[in-house]
Amino acid sequence: MPTYRIPFGGRAHHYPKPVLEKLNSFLAETSSLTQGEYLQKFEYGMSSYIGSEAVLAVANATCALELVAQYLFAKEGGGEIIIPAHTYTSSAYPFAKAGFKIKWADIDPETRVINTKSIERVVSKDTKAIVVVHLYGYIADINEIVEYARAHKIQVIEDTAQAIGTWLDEKHAGTSGDFGVFSFHSHKNISTLGEGGLLSINNPDLLPIFKAMRHNGHMPFPYAREHYWLPAMSNADMPEFNGSYLQPNNYCMAEANCLVGLEMIPYIASIISSKRDRAIKVIDRLSDYETLRFHRCDSARHNYHLLVAKVEGDLRDKLIASLAFDFGIQCATQYYPLYLYDYYKKIGAGEANCPHTEQFFDSMISFPFQSCITDDDIDYMVTSTETCIDSLGGAE
Amino acid sequence: MPTYRIPFGGRAHHYPKPVLEKLNSFLAETSSLTQGEYLQKFEYGMSSYIGSEAVLAVANATCALELVAQYLFAKEGGGEIIIPAHTYTSSAYPFAKAGFKIKWADIDPETRVINTKSIERVVSKDTKAIVVVHLYGYIADINEIVEYARAHKIQVIEDTAQAIGTWLDEKHAGTSGDFGVFSFHSHKNISTLGEGGLLSINNPDLLPIFKAMRHNGHMPFPYAREHYWLPAMSNADMPEFNGSYLQPNNYCMAEANCLVGLEMIPYIASIISSKRDRAIKVIDRLSDYETLRFHRCDSARHNYHLLVAKVEGDLRDKLIASLAFDFGIQCATQYYPLYLYDYYKKIGAGEANCPHTEQFFDSMISFPFQSCITDDDIDYMVTSTETCIDSLGGAE
Repeated sequence: MPTYRIPFGGRAHHYPKPVLEKLNSFLAETSSLTQGEYLQKFEYGMSSYIGSEAVLAVANATCALELVAQYLFAKEGGGEIIIPAHTYTSSAYPFAKAGFKIKWADIDPETRVINTKSIERVVSKDTKAIVVVHLYGYIADINEIVEYARAHKIQVIEDTAQAIGTWLDEKHAGTSGDFGVFSFHSHKNISTLGEGGLLSINNPDLLPIFKAMRHNGHMPFPYAREHYWLPAMSNADMPEFNGSYLQPNNYCMAEANCLVGLEMIPYIASIISSKRDRAIKVIDRLSDYETLRFHRCDSARHNYHLLVAKVEGDLRDKLIASLAFDFGIQCATQYYPLYLYDYYKKIGAGEANCPHTEQFFDSMISFPFQSCITDDDIDYMVTSTETCIDSLGGAE
Repeated sequence: MPTYRIPFGGRAHHYPKPVLEKLNSFLAETSSLTQGEYLQKFEYGMSSYIGSEAVLAVANATCALELVAQYLFAKEGGGEIIIPAHTYTSSAYPFAKAGFKIKWADIDPETRVINTKSIERVVSKDTKAIVVVHLYGYIADINEIVEYARAHKIQVIEDTAQAIGTWLDEKHAGTSGDFGVFSFHSHKNISTLGEGGLLSINNPDLLPIFKAMRHNGHMPFPYAREHYWLPAMSNADMPEFNGSYLQPNNYCMAEANCLVGLEMIPYIASIISSKRDRAIKVIDRLSDYETLRFHRCDSARHNYHLLVAKVEGDLRDKLIASLAFDFGIQCATQYYPLYLYDYYKKIGAGEANCPHTEQFFDSMISFPFQSCITDDDIDYMVTSTETCIDSLGGAE
């Protein structure tokens, strides 16, 4: 394994000193390391920040998707779910596990996210839900998609793992559909100590059900108790739902993670605007190179969680190889069309008609773009890219 | 809610200063907050400490039990599993979710754990597995149980959530059966920042399967790749198993948690021996009070994660009430017979013949017993208990 001057992935940002100081005080003084005050404070903070009445912090974004999948399957009893073929596997497999049949939607070649047209091509009378992934940090046409879904009585799950700090028509990503899923994984723009997630629920009446599903099936006793220890310290139950029962899980997020998440909320805006400014500068500096086709969106709708481009012609692999091995810049390819993975073939989801998904994957490059990359390294990445393309004969 | 001088639960221990310093350096300097070097180091450290060749760090102990339940159900295709009725709900529900039928085993009234006799009473030709919970930190008769299970081709899962740092016949708890499950939750003797767990697997050949189940179905590509980005950055697959496929999950433990776990390993022995010494002192100081029946075990077989007693006669609720409301000591009752919870009734596991489980639960008291309670507060708890029993007329 070579050591890269600019590796792909890893951590996205460093923690400001005041955040680490609060974490230290907390760890020294707290009376509980889980299920305490910071869970509530973080949920309250995120609820205010994204403008959603009902949110739940969970261990990671996949856990949030598992909760939604379990709930929707109990509600609908089966059926089809539309999912972009161009996304990370976690956006999809929880729904397959729950029992839904996956129908893959193609992406728009310019925005690299699904839209109403690509949804219409795979919708059927059995479609129960759509997962809309705001991939790379760009909000899909969520208003049109939600309008379409409402008209067809289809639930909308917004996978907002990459899109924190983005807004469309004054609504934060993840708050227009029925469910919004957020990630605080190490790679994400804000990380809660490496792992963490959050579920936003449009219907706040569902909150008690999801809280029980999150925390081992604990629910209040259905009657007033005389003492805290009688008949037991806590109750275990699950709400009945369409004749079946929802099941418990342990998807809890610990207090230290919640504290860090809470303390990072005030930094989201500056992190996102710096990333977007930097992305636009890179895109504009490389605009003479028509070999590279970026999606340029200089508004709150895009946070440039990732900086990706389509490479025209047949230079893609040569470009990645040269950047990696000649310049020490580790670019990536994302996202392998999910239906091509053996996992999805084995579960019967190996078929799709997604030409844009395949074309984009086969020709795309994803540059390292964590917040904590220095300006100097970004400059080095741009000049190296220019040099590479020039030497590969792709300049225009 | 009253504020207690000695609350029940919360955190078990404080972090030694060197551990917090290492955490701070890590958070400032690391290049990745998850899936990094500390995952491997923590697993290697725990592997050495407990003496198990194959271990996996996971988000929490329930996740470890979920992995075992998913694997065993794929392997066995159904059947019955024997589980103590006297344990926390997480020991049981993952197996019900996976599809097993639960048969509840009663506890021994002295040790408060199951044994071969109570297992024999509920075993059948359909029994595929037994969950042995080393409850309160005491290792059940694991040698006899494993011998019995091997003879009947039954898998043994040791729920070692409460029993870290305990040994029987030179084997650490959790390493005699087919699987051992450990917890680093806030309440446990060692906590990895509030949440965390570990799975020990007796058969190391199974490790790749469990790693894929833990981390979103990521598995190596089944062929050598020319470049790291081709055909994709990572593969998603699941091993075939008895004609069905195992499913992925995201049960990853982040680096900060792994680092804290690793750094705490050298402290386990002193934490456990201090707890045991303290428990034996409390038990011996209260030995004149035959109203209280502790399980006294002054050996490495018991870590006294919790300090519980059976209260003879009808004083139990009066004692808890007086300690709570007159003395500010929050005792607890544990563990509600699982088959009495509405959850288990709803899933068809509401029947059992477990008289000792019910008798013990109805008369038991669990004292606050976290490591970080001061000696003065322990002394106050003992004298308050004496005063209470004297005034309630229970002295003998």
